[in-house]
Amino acid sequence: MSILIKDVEIVGVRGKKSVYIEEGKIVEVGNPSVEADRVIRGDFILSPAFYNTHTHAAMTLLRGYGDDMDLQSWLTEKIWPREAKLKPEDVYWGTRLAALEMIRSGVVGFADMYFYVKEVARAVVDQGVRALISEGFIDLFDEEKRENEIKKVEKGLKALEDFPSERVRPSLGPHAVYTVSREGFEYIREKADETGYPIHIHLLETRVELEDFLKEHGVSPVKYLQEVGILRKGTIAAHSVHLTDDEIDVYSKLGVYPSHCPTSNMKLSVKGIMPAQRMVEKGVRVTLGTDGAASNNSLNMLQEMKFAALLAKGLSSPTNLPAEVVFRMATEWGAEALGFRAGKVEEGYDADLLLFKRRHVSFTPGFNSISDIVYSAGPSSLDTVICLGEVLMEEGVIPSEEEVIERTREVSYDLIER
Amino acid sequence: MSILIKDVEIVGVRGKKSVYIEEGKIVEVGNPSVEADRVIRGDFILSPAFYNTHTHAAMTLLRGYGDDMDLQSWLTEKIWPREAKLKPEDVYWGTRLAALEMIRSGVVGFADMYFYVKEVARAVVDQGVRALISEGFIDLFDEEKRENEIKKVEKGLKALEDFPSERVRPSLGPHAVYTVSREGFEYIREKADETGYPIHIHLLETRVELEDFLKEHGVSPVKYLQEVGILRKGTIAAHSVHLTDDEIDVYSKLGVYPSHCPTSNMKLSVKGIMPAQRMVEKGVRVTLGTDGAASNNSLNMLQEMKFAALLAKGLSSPTNLPAEVVFRMATEWGAEALGFRAGKVEEGYDADLLLFKRRHVSFTPGFNSISDIVYSAGPSSLDTVICLGEVLMEEGVIPSEEEVIERTREVSYDLIER
Repeated sequence: MSILIKDVEIVGVRGKKSVYIEEGKIVEVGNPSVEADRVIRGDFILSPAFYNTHTHAAMTLLRGYGDDMDLQSWLTEKIWPREAKLKPEDVYWGTRLAALEMIRSGVVGFADMYFYVKEVARAVVDQGVRALISEGFIDLFDEEKRENEIKKVEKGLKALEDFPSERVRPSLGPHAVYTVSREGFEYIREKADETGYPIHIHLLETRVELEDFLKEHGVSPVKYLQEVGILRKGTIAAHSVHLTDDEIDVYSKLGVYPSHCPTSNMKLSVKGIMPAQRMVEKGVRVTLGTDGAASNNSLNMLQEMKFAALLAKGLSSPTNLPAEVVFRMATEWGAEALGFRAGKVEEGYDADLLLFKRRHVSFTPGFNSISDIVYSAGPSSLDTVICLGEVLMEEGVIPSEEEVIERTREVSYDLIER
Repeated sequence: MSILIKDVEIVGVRGKKSVYIEEGKIVEVGNPSVEADRVIRGDFILSPAFYNTHTHAAMTLLRGYGDDMDLQSWLTEKIWPREAKLKPEDVYWGTRLAALEMIRSGVVGFADMYFYVKEVARAVVDQGVRALISEGFIDLFDEEKRENEIKKVEKGLKALEDFPSERVRPSLGPHAVYTVSREGFEYIREKADETGYPIHIHLLETRVELEDFLKEHGVSPVKYLQEVGILRKGTIAAHSVHLTDDEIDVYSKLGVYPSHCPTSNMKLSVKGIMPAQRMVEKGVRVTLGTDGAASNNSLNMLQEMKFAALLAKGLSSPTNLPAEVVFRMATEWGAEALGFRAGKVEEGYDADLLLFKRRHVSFTPGFNSISDIVYSAGPSSLDTVICLGEVLMEEGVIPSEEEVIERTREVSYDLIER
């Protein structure tokens, strides 16, 4: 299957160009004189697609089920009791709804940490996107629980490895320093050494997490995780709010990808602002995450870009995180963190592409397309979404949408009444 | 013209009801057994519409023209040189685009401060919304300039008073303490006494504004403006970021409406967070504003609600500004600040109403419609917008949209090349 996208404005570039796609790759950018199975044309701005580097996709099931609560009550009264009753089918539909919602804001790939990874993989592939998938590992410092968790991880990895699609990449998901023992982390590190799979962890989300760990261990979580081999090249460290300057250097030296989740951080009141500007200055490739829909409550990467820029500026400087940098966080750096050769409109890159409507209020007048995408556009300004050369949304329509909404609603109401 | 909206879920209320509208008013809520000129039905959530209490609507003309700059360079290099070349027609089209963009996020009324108020009024009425309109008054402490400004204000008020529509309400717009002399403020106060028109002012936006004023006058801007009679019942004080607890009491006692502009504040880096939670606790009716599109860069009240809630929580407490309070800020309190009997779905109130699509990803599962509107919904989840009983948008379509986008684009490009 080949596609020719004719005469569009490529984001950040003057003038009109065409893009030729074959077998999921961008083959030519410029003025290709080829025949294609399919030609797309229109008054569009062509952009690389976005990547969401931290989410628990199926938590769409609990969107709006508990808000405006302190973190501990929210977890113990609302989230954990429901998650204890999750069935595989719930995770399948919750993940499909999440993938669908992400497509609507231009996301075609995400890093997930949740339960029932085989169902996550099925949903990802059925919705046409791709993902780095991990089974969350939580041993709560208990040996018996650890053995069970190890079995779950092994089973999950096997399911993902056997899954017949290149759209699914396995990863390892040790939850956080306050939920995983040293022995647990050692198991994960060995598994990572053995398989080469990347690690995805929550790190330094709240101020309390930092203070408690320091009190108990006398070293910072960053130093500890570096020693135990969890912070390493390619690790996705979700949140990373409460870092010192020296710890930012550790991220930079190792090649850790922080996943900045501005909305979730503010909603759950983490008592700090992620030092994204400082990280970028020090060469860290900061990426963006929505976190789960229960703590966001949307999965809208366009909003996440805007809010990341605003948070970096508000109390510091208006020149922090300019639109071009935030755009790279959501595209190039996000793709890199997920292990995809994507995030740029260049020959040889994966054909993960978006077409925004130029004749939309968000792009009017239209002086700067990157600024308009970061600060002004929303899902309604997006016309077409392409993942690996496959059209997932066209003229704002995703064919499976009605069914996915209906089924997810059913399983959600069933879940909270179980 | 009468409308019957049949069997919809009213936001925050269980079960289905119908709403009967006649001559721009809500006449009955419940199960009216009437014939209507028009019946609307569908799987909808009915909400009161939103009010934007601080904007410079025509600044849509400069959306994306200068971003990520410090405030002073932005104003002197980008905004002021272009505003000096504005023509009345530019303001007309810029305001129409703004009104259109606001309708898309559910806003049907706004408080505007800009130039060429007759054009603003024309655009407001032609787009079907309503507004509290002021000519910005800036004398820069110069007597000659003051005389000119007074003439402009008088001319503007006359134009608004003569304007043949109840959708337009005049107001007085002294710009700020750093741009208006004491004599200027005295003129405004006299005019307000004489006419009863409300005052709309920028106040305590940046930390620098506060520090400079304190240094020069030895009193705070709040005390000064209270003395000179500008802070009074009904005054809209845009931004109001850097207030002391005692000053919040002054707002509460007088009945001042702060217009909280979270996005603009963060984007321009005002170095503080508006104490919205504290204000609400002290009985102040906090309202929401987008500010102009040059410093936002969208006019999306759904996003503004979410950011307001997030900003109030992030560094303080997750229980601050719960969804129900933010919703009131955008509806009931916003309407009150603009002088409209609106913002509630109750008999006798103006028929300013929204229909959200219940079968939309943002409302799935749909456990809490207020939470879903504040934290999850975007313009794409809005189906119908009604202002004073007149349908402005239906099935997401605003009939004038193409023309407005086209014409605004033309005048914008002309403006920056003038």
